[in-house]
Amino acid sequence: MTRGKFVVIEGLEGAGKSTAVAAIQTLLEQQGVEYINTREPGGTPIAESLRTIVKQGVDGEQVCDSTELLLMYAARAQLVETRIKPALSEGKWVVGDRHDLSSQAYQGGGRELGVDKLQAIKQIAIGSFEPDLTLYLDIEPGLGLSRARDRGELDRIEQQALSFFERSRSVYLAQAEANENIVKIDASQSIDKVACDIQAALNNYLNTL
Amino acid sequence: MTRGKFVVIEGLEGAGKSTAVAAIQTLLEQQGVEYINTREPGGTPIAESLRTIVKQGVDGEQVCDSTELLLMYAARAQLVETRIKPALSEGKWVVGDRHDLSSQAYQGGGRELGVDKLQAIKQIAIGSFEPDLTLYLDIEPGLGLSRARDRGELDRIEQQALSFFERSRSVYLAQAEANENIVKIDASQSIDKVACDIQAALNNYLNTL
Repeated sequence: MTRGKFVVIEGLEGAGKSTAVAAIQTLLEQQGVEYINTREPGGTPIAESLRTIVKQGVDGEQVCDSTELLLMYAARAQLVETRIKPALSEGKWVVGDRHDLSSQAYQGGGRELGVDKLQAIKQIAIGSFEPDLTLYLDIEPGLGLSRARDRGELDRIEQQALSFFERSRSVYLAQAEANENIVKIDASQSIDKVACDIQAALNNYLNTL
Repeated sequence: MTRGKFVVIEGLEGAGKSTAVAAIQTLLEQQGVEYINTREPGGTPIAESLRTIVKQGVDGEQVCDSTELLLMYAARAQLVETRIKPALSEGKWVVGDRHDLSSQAYQGGGRELGVDKLQAIKQIAIGSFEPDLTLYLDIEPGLGLSRARDRGELDRIEQQALSFFERSRSVYLAQAEANENIVKIDASQSIDKVACDIQAALNNYLNTL
């Protein structure tokens, strides 16, 4: 059986990831491709528990930066091992709302833990596992955050200063520049135009298979 | 103010760590030394939540080996940052029921994740932070497990095959051999004799300060 493909949506808060995921699903369904959805951190009972701890803390205690990094990768290791790899082996596609690039951007860039530390922990957690295609929704942080704010309360990570998101965006942009499996999409456009660009990028990828 | 000291008790299940901790506390109290206790994984609300996830899983899902490793270090990073380092800075001693050497032994040896991976993740989680003194209670795994079994139900890690504990013990013994801050104590002796050896080792250490 042909191995499925792992397609990931990445971007800052308010970039429009949910709309992008829906656009991908629509196209895959039109093509008759079987898929599962994941979100990170999360996607298994254990990983969802870790997501809650990272976002809300426990009994008033908040996670330290190193703890956050280790928990993000613990959740990712569990998800890759128990859901993503098995689905790909069964020939299903996996549509991921965030994956490793988010940690590179947020913990490596935003929290300034650095590229070397991020590469080292990635190797420990998931080895050389990589998405087949990443669609990065690029947005100026101020615009993204004002969109996220309109959706309701911001969580702990979303409450960071603007400079945190500027640093995260720099990592996203540098990685998109350096890696041909990452397609950058202008997320400041209208929702319809972004969805259209997403589907065009995915169609391009399908045509290479 | 003089920095406090971090004294750790290590050893396989059934080696008698609780008795050893009590013996250390008695001696420190006699000497008028202020201390706090920690246990690993655990010791903060977040770290205790992670302990529960490692030991019991979530909704029937058990942690994978890499996830377990990352969670152990997430719990350790949180404990070192929020409890151990602050206590030491205030001049208090910290008496630890397990610390990093347990991960070296159980995940590195028992689960065969290897020394390099363990050194890399330790560096990410806690950098070069080390106990001042480690008292390693050495016991033949079969004897330790039969003692642990007498105490009640065995948890997920305690249910491993004997070979798992043989590999863990090999790492303990190698590290005790290589590191002069680790004192090996024969835990197959009577409880009273072990407590006596523990206090002697701690007295030796106190005399060097």
